[in-house]
Amino acid sequence: MPFKLFLEMKRIVDILKDDPSMVEITVKGWVRSFRNDRFIAINDGSTIKNLQAVIDPEKIDQAVRDQITVASAVAVTGNLVESEGKGQRVELQANSVEILATADSEEVAKTILSPKRHKLDTLREQAHLRVRTNTFGAVMRVRAALSFAIHKYFQEKGFYQAHTPIITGSDAEGAGEMFRISTLDTKNPPLTEEGEIDYSKDFFGKETNLTVSGQLEAETYAMGLGQVYTFGPTFRAENSNTSRHLAEFWMIEPEVAFNDLDANMDLAEDFIKEVIKYTIEQCADDLEFLEQRLVNEDKLKPQAERSPMPLREKLEFVLKNNFKRVSYTEAIDILKNSKPNKKKKFNYVIEEWGADLQSEHERYLVEKHFKCPVILFDYPAKIKAFYMRLNDDHKTVRAMDILFPGIGEIVGGSQREERYDVLKQKMDDMGIPEEELWWYLEMRKFGSVVHSGFGLGFERLVMFVTGMGNVRDVIPYPRTPGNAEF
Amino acid sequence: MPFKLFLEMKRIVDILKDDPSMVEITVKGWVRSFRNDRFIAINDGSTIKNLQAVIDPEKIDQAVRDQITVASAVAVTGNLVESEGKGQRVELQANSVEILATADSEEVAKTILSPKRHKLDTLREQAHLRVRTNTFGAVMRVRAALSFAIHKYFQEKGFYQAHTPIITGSDAEGAGEMFRISTLDTKNPPLTEEGEIDYSKDFFGKETNLTVSGQLEAETYAMGLGQVYTFGPTFRAENSNTSRHLAEFWMIEPEVAFNDLDANMDLAEDFIKEVIKYTIEQCADDLEFLEQRLVNEDKLKPQAERSPMPLREKLEFVLKNNFKRVSYTEAIDILKNSKPNKKKKFNYVIEEWGADLQSEHERYLVEKHFKCPVILFDYPAKIKAFYMRLNDDHKTVRAMDILFPGIGEIVGGSQREERYDVLKQKMDDMGIPEEELWWYLEMRKFGSVVHSGFGLGFERLVMFVTGMGNVRDVIPYPRTPGNAEF
Repeated sequence: MPFKLFLEMKRIVDILKDDPSMVEITVKGWVRSFRNDRFIAINDGSTIKNLQAVIDPEKIDQAVRDQITVASAVAVTGNLVESEGKGQRVELQANSVEILATADSEEVAKTILSPKRHKLDTLREQAHLRVRTNTFGAVMRVRAALSFAIHKYFQEKGFYQAHTPIITGSDAEGAGEMFRISTLDTKNPPLTEEGEIDYSKDFFGKETNLTVSGQLEAETYAMGLGQVYTFGPTFRAENSNTSRHLAEFWMIEPEVAFNDLDANMDLAEDFIKEVIKYTIEQCADDLEFLEQRLVNEDKLKPQAERSPMPLREKLEFVLKNNFKRVSYTEAIDILKNSKPNKKKKFNYVIEEWGADLQSEHERYLVEKHFKCPVILFDYPAKIKAFYMRLNDDHKTVRAMDILFPGIGEIVGGSQREERYDVLKQKMDDMGIPEEELWWYLEMRKFGSVVHSGFGLGFERLVMFVTGMGNVRDVIPYPRTPGNAEF
Repeated sequence: MPFKLFLEMKRIVDILKDDPSMVEITVKGWVRSFRNDRFIAINDGSTIKNLQAVIDPEKIDQAVRDQITVASAVAVTGNLVESEGKGQRVELQANSVEILATADSEEVAKTILSPKRHKLDTLREQAHLRVRTNTFGAVMRVRAALSFAIHKYFQEKGFYQAHTPIITGSDAEGAGEMFRISTLDTKNPPLTEEGEIDYSKDFFGKETNLTVSGQLEAETYAMGLGQVYTFGPTFRAENSNTSRHLAEFWMIEPEVAFNDLDANMDLAEDFIKEVIKYTIEQCADDLEFLEQRLVNEDKLKPQAERSPMPLREKLEFVLKNNFKRVSYTEAIDILKNSKPNKKKKFNYVIEEWGADLQSEHERYLVEKHFKCPVILFDYPAKIKAFYMRLNDDHKTVRAMDILFPGIGEIVGGSQREERYDVLKQKMDDMGIPEEELWWYLEMRKFGSVVHSGFGLGFERLVMFVTGMGNVRDVIPYPRTPGNAEF
């Protein structure tokens, strides 16, 4: 079958690796710059690098040359020759130039497409254009590479992706505040005899919300397929206007039958390392650019806030070192005896075992004490979710969190409570309504084996790998309190 | 790094390919049957096939043997030997059996886990258990293989996945009725002075909905990265209780810069064929099972309703034949002159050019007239969305639908209107509010090149490949009017 796109057109990422040739080719892309009426830098989105096309001004009409402006699109036909310029092996000796789409320079000047430095928040306001900039092109290619690496990893390890539901009839998942979904007439909703909103008349015949996690459903699938994972959007209706929180974000949640917590930690560590490794291999040019971007950005910051390592060195460091595995109890000891705790420099001073760890404590452990990724495990049962497996001490559960430098919690996981009676008791104690999660409990009656899993916040991983400091800059159209533009 | 899961345990799909060996192995899985106090059929979800473990009743305690019941979980340690049984090369000669999890036979008897035929709607009511059955194990493995095939295809062709937003501030996408998202107090919502609901006080500061399509945002990304695709959940708040409609379903939407409608059709056809091909290769055993399942099901149906071809033959047929490309105008001629139209057997008799095609017409074209997948293109502008590119006849747009036998529309796509003035006029004419889609329109000012894309309903594809007749049976937890269980 003829497949026009790929027969007609070669992408610039591949052309730049080609040898000079006398075969005429046509390249389509957007103009990033046009110097001296002669040198067009063309980008087609396939790479951060531009292809330089060299035109002979005398051969190309003035009218055409006038339209070769920043952000316009051109098709240049010519021969690939050895480049005399720096930083490129080849360039395109143009025989003809066709204007595919214009871009009015005055209009461009009003936007982030204009060739100068723009602030990240200005770029955010023009999120429909920002992917055309070097920074966002690079970030989004890295994001896509990480995304594929995740599917590839699980595929090779024999996992099946399970598409767990986005709309849920349960609000008991316990991971956070939820968004309500409805098709009822908000102004005149149907009411019950008691004067309450009558959700039995709503689309799904009951109150429904956007999911905060696919874990519970993924567990049911692990009991059938053995090893599954989800990779989908999850939601938090929390009024957190921080650089690390989104109301809508993507999460990866593997769930594995027969895996205990140790195996779960092994899986998480291996998984993170492998997907980063793949991305380093696939995105060398983008990461080089992003590393330099970070260096430039750091120059504007006080010494103490600068990145301790260049971006790629940081990634290699993660690959080469084992994550440090520390029990919650050990961590509390370290924190209690730490200088900032003794000098009461923490906002929340650690007084005793059982305290919930705050971001400041996690950062101390990761960035000051261990200076590497840390896995904390065996947390107090009281500060963790109902579904985590109770240890024999009856005080702690088989939970684990992975903490990353600069990012904080990137993974939260646990071995799940597989014992029917223990789970039922826990649900009763914690007020989890059995009528909503009957199926989750019932599953424990039939061959309920040891199993475990974790959730990894995809955007946090993208932040870590790209070095971007704000989660709004690693997803195409961020959703945060007060913002659902585009 | 030690990676316990995969060091300790080999999956049955791999074991079944192994040669007999004197090395002792341990297999963990669920009991599918236990015959003659001797033969355990073990399944671990990695394949539809069971591993037979043979125990010597005299060596295994009665107490243990009593717990080897359907749906219980066991770890069997032994040697892989040549099998004397039919249908398997190897079996496990057990040295020891450990019960990992029990399953009370009386409780199992009340569920779909009991070893007898259950109706698909009974299985649907126990969706948390159905993946443990042969049919749903096979369907969900095929679904996962198709899902991976899609990512792999786009990766190899140089596409980047773009995660377009699920929550949208726009209700102008035009693909269907939407679900509203809110965190307002439904009983006492804040009101404006005019007595309307004050959405400025809602979480996002405006009215928000669940997306019906990521296309418009994907277009903005194609203008930066060249070739992108989405693969995410989309929503329709339509009261369609059919075997082909879900309120929540997954959609794939590629969008390609520089591609016209012909190239778009090429891409769609190549894409569908390649992902089916990959799945045939990966899921041979599951497809064999599903083919037989369909044969058995067909036996209960009248001749006219049976599948015209066995499942795998149907898939091969799609791979081997070009999709028939037919303009809407040609299709109308064929339909006008068709027997069912002349005899007024259609519910909607085709009278003239401009009529919207109904499912009955599409089925006639695909199943009776052409007897192969059909691509219809160049539809009347009046019956298609505002963003489709107007042809020079000013009557038709560069739209295309791909119709599949037994499934109907599986793909809908178009070349997009890239001309600012034409798009603006179209939006005005069709009442699309510019204040919501200003960014979509503005994009046309800056290097707005020819581009096109399509949407493929993932569940329709899974239905086609698995031969399942109801869309509720190809997604783990279906969402339909009145149903958001689990």
